Amino acid sequence: MIFFRKSGKPKRLNQGQGENVMSPATKGGYDKSPLKLRIIAIGGLEEVGRNMTLFEYGSDIIIIDMGLQFPEEDMPGIDYIIPNISYLKGKEKNIRGIVITHGHMDHIGGIPHLAPRLGNPTIYGTKLTCAMIKRRQEDYKSEPLNLAVVKEDETLTLGKIEVSFFHVNHSIPDSVGVVIKTPVGTIVHTGDWKFDYTPVGERPADFSKIAQIGKAGVLALLCDSTDAPEEGHQISEQEIGKNLKSIIEKAPGRIIIGTFSSLLSRVEQIITLAEEMGKKVAVDGFSMKTNVEIVKTLGYLKVKPGTLIDIKDIHNYPQEKMIVICTGAQGEGRAVLMRIANEEHRFVRIEPKDTVIFSSSVIPGNERTIQRLKDTLYRKGADVIHYKMMDIHAGGHAKAEDIKLMICLVRPKYYIPIHGPHSFLRMNAKIAESIGLDSKNIFVADNGQVMEFQSSPRETYGAVGRLTPQHVPADYVMVDGLGVGDVSQVVLRDRQMMAEDGMIVIIVTVDGKTGYLIGSPDIISRGFVYMRESKQLIEQVRSKVKKLITDRDPKSAADNIFIKNKIRDNIGQFLFTKTERRPMVLPVIIEV
Amino acid sequence: MIFFRKSGKPKRLNQGQGENVMSPATKGGYDKSPLKLRIIAIGGLEEVGRNMTLFEYGSDIIIIDMGLQFPEEDMPGIDYIIPNISYLKGKEKNIRGIVITHGHMDHIGGIPHLAPRLGNPTIYGTKLTCAMIKRRQEDYKSEPLNLAVVKEDETLTLGKIEVSFFHVNHSIPDSVGVVIKTPVGTIVHTGDWKFDYTPVGERPADFSKIAQIGKAGVLALLCDSTDAPEEGHQISEQEIGKNLKSIIEKAPGRIIIGTFSSLLSRVEQIITLAEEMGKKVAVDGFSMKTNVEIVKTLGYLKVKPGTLIDIKDIHNYPQEKMIVICTGAQGEGRAVLMRIANEEHRFVRIEPKDTVIFSSSVIPGNERTIQRLKDTLYRKGADVIHYKMMDIHAGGHAKAEDIKLMICLVRPKYYIPIHGPHSFLRMNAKIAESIGLDSKNIFVADNGQVMEFQSSPRETYGAVGRLTPQHVPADYVMVDGLGVGDVSQVVLRDRQMMAEDGMIVIIVTVDGKTGYLIGSPDIISRGFVYMRESKQLIEQVRSKVKKLITDRDPKSAADNIFIKNKIRDNIGQFLFTKTERRPMVLPVIIEV
Repeated sequence: MIFFRKSGKPKRLNQGQGENVMSPATKGGYDKSPLKLRIIAIGGLEEVGRNMTLFEYGSDIIIIDMGLQFPEEDMPGIDYIIPNISYLKGKEKNIRGIVITHGHMDHIGGIPHLAPRLGNPTIYGTKLTCAMIKRRQEDYKSEPLNLAVVKEDETLTLGKIEVSFFHVNHSIPDSVGVVIKTPVGTIVHTGDWKFDYTPVGERPADFSKIAQIGKAGVLALLCDSTDAPEEGHQISEQEIGKNLKSIIEKAPGRIIIGTFSSLLSRVEQIITLAEEMGKKVAVDGFSMKTNVEIVKTLGYLKVKPGTLIDIKDIHNYPQEKMIVICTGAQGEGRAVLMRIANEEHRFVRIEPKDTVIFSSSVIPGNERTIQRLKDTLYRKGADVIHYKMMDIHAGGHAKAEDIKLMICLVRPKYYIPIHGPHSFLRMNAKIAESIGLDSKNIFVADNGQVMEFQSSPRETYGAVGRLTPQHVPADYVMVDGLGVGDVSQVVLRDRQMMAEDGMIVIIVTVDGKTGYLIGSPDIISRGFVYMRESKQLIEQVRSKVKKLITDRDPKSAADNIFIKNKIRDNIGQFLFTKTERRPMVLPVIIEV
Repeated sequence: MIFFRKSGKPKRLNQGQGENVMSPATKGGYDKSPLKLRIIAIGGLEEVGRNMTLFEYGSDIIIIDMGLQFPEEDMPGIDYIIPNISYLKGKEKNIRGIVITHGHMDHIGGIPHLAPRLGNPTIYGTKLTCAMIKRRQEDYKSEPLNLAVVKEDETLTLGKIEVSFFHVNHSIPDSVGVVIKTPVGTIVHTGDWKFDYTPVGERPADFSKIAQIGKAGVLALLCDSTDAPEEGHQISEQEIGKNLKSIIEKAPGRIIIGTFSSLLSRVEQIITLAEEMGKKVAVDGFSMKTNVEIVKTLGYLKVKPGTLIDIKDIHNYPQEKMIVICTGAQGEGRAVLMRIANEEHRFVRIEPKDTVIFSSSVIPGNERTIQRLKDTLYRKGADVIHYKMMDIHAGGHAKAEDIKLMICLVRPKYYIPIHGPHSFLRMNAKIAESIGLDSKNIFVADNGQVMEFQSSPRETYGAVGRLTPQHVPADYVMVDGLGVGDVSQVVLRDRQMMAEDGMIVIIVTVDGKTGYLIGSPDIISRGFVYMRESKQLIEQVRSKVKKLITDRDPKSAADNIFIKNKIRDNIGQFLFTKTERRPMVLPVIIEV
């Protein structure tokens, strides 16, 4: 643990000054204990994804969420990024539980990699959330998890911390916010959320429960910032249904709808629309089919018999009776929509009367790929409808006005924006300020930055908080294939360099005794120039290398490193002059 | 030329049926000539950039624009892409001129590479356009160009084709649309354009001239599609000025404004605002400084003495008196804004009262980089304002309602959407249809697809057109350093492969006579695993390779290719099993 305290001993603040220890979060009360509550988000404060927040009070640690993040553009070959858990090393026995807010990858995706390394603590989640975690675990051969299904009205006692839940809306059912009652005060963590007065397949968020929690006194609110930069209120899922309905009604033929495989409320809504209109639905894409199977089995999705058909039977029905819901709306290379567009799908080809709907937002970074996918679909004759043309996608996150309502209901003393790049957190902070929260009580933290809360008799809610300058390790842990954290910056830099201008290997064979060159240097190059068309250039390199070798003092066998550097520098410079490219130059000296 | 005609001889249509040859584009007239007018866009119909359109009538060829395109994500290391001019090979003597619509890179950037290869035909452009072409040419050591400055009211006679111009608004002054009068009919090419009733530093587009051209009869209109998917009208540049003014007025300290270096109307506007408010302006960024120098010299930009100061003198003025206009609003790595954010700028560091304005749109593909730049600026304490928060950027392109007005003024018989990905062209086509153009007369073409127009006595405007199925070569020509077109798909694929999982070189030295292994195989790897931490894996590879070599028949020296393939396959498979990564495996056999 990295705490830069000047004295070796922690100062015992407020000792002996207090009243009796009151129940956690009692208004006006505070605990005599000198213990601090530490909140550390080791992911989710500088990017989208990899959400994981620690709550530590004495020897009790609660973890909320354990997500993964998709790689940035400058991380070629990386599958995804998971949180760095080195702060928890040696503290595994203190972990009282991992609480998961909902079943999306940026909240559950780190579990298969991290839970076993933390001694497999109990993972708490609602029914659907646990089912999603279990599904993902099946892809890994690691030991089974300790999953515990919780109900929304349950209260868990995890050490000195009590955990309870409240229902929120999001783009997957069974999403919850979490109430963490500690001796220092009550903390509310929203998870990913929006307010939806007319959601699909579930109730609106539990406004009255949230208000009650607020009334009992909340020390700090950790609140989702994903859509904080957006003005107004998030669109209701039912609003989307109306627009989808009007498109489906007007479409002359088949409908193909691409959306996120985890956007289960959208899938449900489309199935309901299809049933109203007497159409059949084929769901395609591995993850989407699995997810639909899960929600059907758990009773979250109600489908009439005969509505869902297998994609391979699609040609048994008239085109105008068919809706295909599939993956690939982000332009993912191997997903269904791309395969359909590229004529690589086994059962579906685009036909002129088809209407393709992108019922999704565009994840930053995917713009150009999606554009090309749309172009291909247009070329094949489909009509293409996307979110810029009509509201056919509602996000799963609170916008500015929704956030104001949440703050008014929870009435926290401290406000901690979470889930988003730094600038989103700042915009979320501004929203809180705009409705009267004291800017001193708003903590815009970095990943790994420690926030401390401690009881104080002078304070209304029994505790004061501060954003300390202390940071625990919270950098990237990259997963590439089976390797977790083994791809270093060195490896990434090499990948980037080779991606830019390729590489050239120069193999020189010398007599180990005399140091004389044997034969001619061998030169291999990839990704630099097309070798067959660059014979002259390669010949020039070869004779330059020969000269470098023959010019050196052949007796000094120890200067292999020196001569290798010389080859690297000279040839690198020569190639840049000739081509203005900087391939990686790899000299190898073989002594025989 | 690739024309798939069945008979060897061209059919002479309408021969002898006609009236007298009338002046080009005379309403109701047609020419007796059997010649066709061919329009071929060899760039600009499938992407943004690389704009270049050919007009060929008999032995007269006119080229409009010669741009470059920035590379796609799957082209690592490529600097940019230029049009493929192989259709013009052998026809150089027919080129009567290259007409440039305005001075942006996607319209002039191909000139240094392509004009010399076409025999340096005369390049026509307005004053500023020619200055921008000349500026760019200075970066190249090639022979001087034949530049001819034209005035907007001039008419050029280029073979049997007459070329004249009309003023349009865009984000750089001196932009024109082009009127191409041919014996077959009049073609109008809009260039990049918008209508702005209150532009900055120039007149509104020449509505009355455009209407006159339309009245005289237009066979076909080629129209910019860049903002066709956007509803309504493009915002006026002066509107932006009002918003910028209110931000600058409220800002507590220094203002730093990032924008496109070529967006000269924005730069002019900011300078005018600064003068009104008694502030000083420092322009920074090489391309922006050069561009500002050009417009100042040519008289397009009027600046009071003392307004512009050198960036190095910025600290001689109070912070609240300073405006910095700079490059880097797209998050470009070496541009000014990024250097300021990363504390690598020689004279400017972000300070808490700074306001940074992104007065630009986000070019697709740059979203995440710009997000990170904003985060860094926020972190350093700046206030950040971008176009989503307020209208502080007006695009340079016509939106749907502007396009409708253009069509109503030009009243073309045929409509050809240009400049944009295929789906944008389709949306532009829909706009034309929505105001009554016959869908049969709208040509949504591919790059290189030939459009033919030919006189016909039965037709009102003297000619009929068709979108033929014929295509001339129009694929990518990639520029990487000094190499033009020498980076093939093979090289790109290798770069991608190495970017994903790196590479491993396995060097085996064998006795050339006996085929026996000498020493132990040498293994080098980059971008795959970190070698120091993967000694065991490397050892396993080494012993596997040894076994493969010793197991082979040492006498068959000819099986080097066979054994190399065997090493590639076996080691590739082994590494995938161990790591789930697929590095490029490069076996080398050295015989001594």
